[in-house]
Parts: sequence; C-alpha cells; structure tokens
Amino acid sequence: MQPILTVAEVNGYIEEVFPEVQGQYLCEHIAPMEARVRAVVGPQNLRPGGTVSGPTMFGLADCGFYMVLLAMIGKQALAVTTNASIDFMRKPEPCDMIAEARILKLGRVLAVGDVLMYSEGSDKPVARASMTYSIPPAR
Amino acid sequence: MQPILTVAEVNGYIEEVFPEVQGQYLCEHIAPMEARVRAVVGPQNLRPGGTVSGPTMFGLADCGFYMVLLAMIGKQALAVTTNASIDFMRKPEPCDMIAEARILKLGRVLAVGDVLMYSEGSDKPVARASMTYSIPPAR
Amino acid sequence: MQPILTVAEVNGYIEEVFPEVQGQYLCEHIAPMEARVRAVVGPQNLRPGGTVSGPTMFGLADCGFYMVLLAMIGKQALAVTTNASIDFMRKPEPCDMIAEARILKLGRVLAVGDVLMYSEGSDKPVARASMTYSIPPAR
Amino acid sequence: MQPILTVAEVNGYIEEVFPEVQGQYLCEHIAPMEARVRAVVGPQNLRPGGTVSGPTMFGLADCGFYMVLLAMIGKQALAVTTNASIDFMRKPEPCDMIAEARILKLGRVLAVGDVLMYSEGSDKPVARASMTYSIPPAR
Repeated sequence: MQPILTVAEVNGYIEEVFPEVQGQYLCEHIAPMEARVRAVVGPQNLRPGGTVSGPTMFGLADCGFYMVLLAMIGKQALAVTTNASIDFMRKPEPCDMIAEARILKLGRVLAVGDVLMYSEGSDKPVARASMTYSIPPAR
Repeated sequence: MQPILTVAEVNGYIEEVFPEVQGQYLCEHIAPMEARVRAVVGPQNLRPGGTVSGPTMFGLADCGFYMVLLAMIGKQALAVTTNASIDFMRKPEPCDMIAEARILKLGRVLAVGDVLMYSEGSDKPVARASMTYSIPPAR
Repeated sequence: MQPILTVAEVNGYIEEVFPEVQGQYLCEHIAPMEARVRAVVGPQNLRPGGTVSGPTMFGLADCGFYMVLLAMIGKQALAVTTNASIDFMRKPEPCDMIAEARILKLGRVLAVGDVLMYSEGSDKPVARASMTYSIPPAR
Repeated sequence: MQPILTVAEVNGYIEEVFPEVQGQYLCEHIAPMEARVRAVVGPQNLRPGGTVSGPTMFGLADCGFYMVLLAMIGKQALAVTTNASIDFMRKPEPCDMIAEARILKLGRVLAVGDVLMYSEGSDKPVARASMTYSIPPAR
C-alpha cells in the first residue's frame, strides 16, 4: 500500500488545519506505512536541567503518528487520538528530536501503530509510544 | 498515610522548580493519596473546533499525578515519569479542566496511579490516564 | 443508564458463549456502568512462590470488563478487546481475586473503562487495568 | 551488548522455575537485545470461532519479553512485570504464534521493550505489546 500524500503535502496540510503547531513538528520522510518527523526544540520546549518537556514528546508522538496516517489515508482533519501510551526511557538531550512513526494496523475505524523517539544524533530511543487513532466513517 | 505538604506548599514548589508551567496547572485540594488539580485553559491551549489540545491534557495528567506524589513524599524534584497511558474519551469543552489524581501504589522505587480529567462543570470524564513515576533512591 | 442484564443472565451468557472460562470468572454484582467479578483461583492459576499468574489476572480484567459491558448493552458475543493496559502493583495472595470493573465511556463503536483487582479480603489493589472494547456495528 | 544465555539455557531455566508453562512457550532464537519465541497453541488455547485466547497472547508477550531479558541479564527468577500494554489488532489464526521481543532500555531497575506477535506464516502482526519489568537490586 503506497502513501497518497507527499512530505510537502503532509506539512502543508498540518499548517492549514493546525496552524498552532506550525514550525514545531516537521515531516521529513514518508514511506509505505512509515514516516520520520522532527520536533524543532526551542527554549519553550526545555525543562530545568536541559531536558525536553513531556508535553513536547507527547506532541511529537501524536503529531508523528497523525502525519503517517495522513500520508496513507489522505487529508482527514477529523481523525482523533483515542489512546496514547508512552514509555519514557532516557533523558532527552536539549536538541531536536526525531520520531520514527509506523502504522501496524490500518483498519476501517481504527489505526494502530507506534513511534520511537530519539534525540537527534543518538541511536538510543528516548521514548516509545503506542498510538491508536479513530478514523471518521466519512472516509 | 497523611499528606506532608499543603496545597500552598505544592503550588509553591512547582513554581520554584518548574517555573515554565507556573500558572498553567494549579493544585486545589489534597487528601490522603489524592489531589484535585486545575488546568488553566487559554487560547494557547485550544485547537481548531474549540477543543483543548492533547499536550495540555498530557501535561495535566503528568503534573496532576506529580502534585499528589509531592504531597505524599515531599519535595522530590527528581521523580520522573516512566509511563503515561492516556485514553481520550470525549471532546473537551473550551474551558478549564479539572483532574482527580490518585496514587494506587506508593512503593520504594515506583509510584503508580491514575488521573480522571473533566471539563469544568461536567461529570463525564474527557480523558483517563495511568501514570507511573520512578522515585530517586535518595528519598 | 440502567443495566439490561442481571447477574444471572451475564453468567449464563458467558457459560453459553465461552464455555472454556466457565467456573473461572463469576459476576457477583451489577450496578449502572459497574460490575464486581470474582476469579476463582485454583492450583492451575498459581505460580511458584504462591502467587497468581499474570494470564489469570489478564483474563480477570478482560472478562470483568466484558461482563459489565454485556450488562449494559446486552448479549454481544462479538465485542472484542482492542487494548488492555495493566499495571501490576502488588504480589497477589494465593486466593480468589475480586475485580471492580467500570465503564467510563460507552460510545457507538468503542467502550472504555478500567478494572481494579484485589486479593479477596484485602483493600490494596494488586493490579489496575484500562480496557478498550470495540463494539460491532450490528448493535 | 551480547546475550549471556543460549536458547537452550533460556528454555531450560524456564522449565526449572516455571514448570507450569513448560512446553507452552519456547524460545527459538536469541540475538543482542532480541528474541523470537513460539506459543504452542493447542485446543486449550482456542476460543469459539477458531481464534487464540487473550490470556494465551498475554502470556506470550510476558514470557517472550522475560526470555529476552533472561538472555541478556542471566538467570533472574525475581524479575517481575510492572506494566503490560497490549493492542489487539487482528484476529489470530488457530495455529502457533510467533513473538518477536526486543529490549529498548535495559536499566538498573527497569527494563522496557516491546513484542510483536504473529500467527505463524503471516507477516501481519496480530498484537503488539509494550512491557516493563522491574529487576531486583540483587542483580
């Protein structure tokens, strides 16, 4: 099953429907059922001790999985997160984070997958998330 | 087991160690192993369609559970989230959210509990979170 | 919203559609959106050290939530578990376990809730589970 | 980091400490931080409609992750599951299941990883589990 949106189309659609996250999460690569997404980390994303905030990582997991879903099913503003389960495993570095999101099941009403998140330049995952999205019937 | 910090002490400590969330999450009530926490929702927490953003709810669950933990074990800046599992069940109203956080297990190295989140004035939960925190040995 | 099946009807239906769990999990009480369910623990459910096996607790969470769902929506053999997230918090005693299952959201396609599990006679929870069930459209 | 137990040592140790699961879950392959484990599915693991029971899959995820952990840290009967979060994605076939378990973080007190489960001969995952184990300090 091939993606039906390009990287540029995914980023353009996010800018259009979620202007408030514009510039924070950027899709960098799309493959069948997979996407790589960057969290642009600035001072507002950091916590004392030079680490990245939990909500920034939650947002990366959520937006990252939404982006691969968009790439596969097309522009669906109404797909909503029903479950997110995140394991925080290592302290992130105070730099951009890279997420590898993949879809494991793309069903009629539910999409399920996971997201591995890394501090840029490291190969040890900082966090792992399982995501479930509900897809509206109008699809 | 009685709380060892008051509502004012919990809020004061959060201001001190996490100044960047100051004013966003406020502890309103503490009881043994329980706390009620408010998310102050402003324009920056809203999403198109007049709903509250996922990262705001994640932050409420995380900060809410941290606050009840602080109340029970005292000032522990180093306690860290190891797992957060959130079910998003209903669309939040565009208003403040109230979290009821409770500790189910307060162990030597792990604290486990859950958080129910409501739009203020509603009795139907918007989201439910399970939280696990790792407690540093220096306790 | 009132239950539409009685305790006897729930147990009878489970015997009919899941004969292999007959006698292992028994519904004892039903209230609106809530049920209390017993796991009958025998030698085959124990592990070395005199504790209850993980699969027995998983089965209790799963069957317990299914029973409260049956009570509320009626006989639906086809409702299926889509997510189960379990925190194991204390070592169970080698005796029957009691589950308190509740529905937090009963939607058109998804039901979400949680289950607290206790060793009989104890008030400290052994385990906590979040459950999501998918409800078939033919409802 | 290299495994310190072989496939035969892992299976032998499981037989010794968990005789009640003997013959049900078999380690087939070990690599650094990874293991492949088979659930031997018989009539007692099936449900009406010819599908594999939830507790069997829970047991496969739990035992599968325990096996890779044993392989990496050596014989540790006391490591215990603290969290298991399972997404059930497809109906399993009535045949053996294969689990691919991997460790994402092997810490001093917690090990975190995930497990993908397949019906033998299929490449579409039936279920996905995240597992957290607590490792006793005596290590």
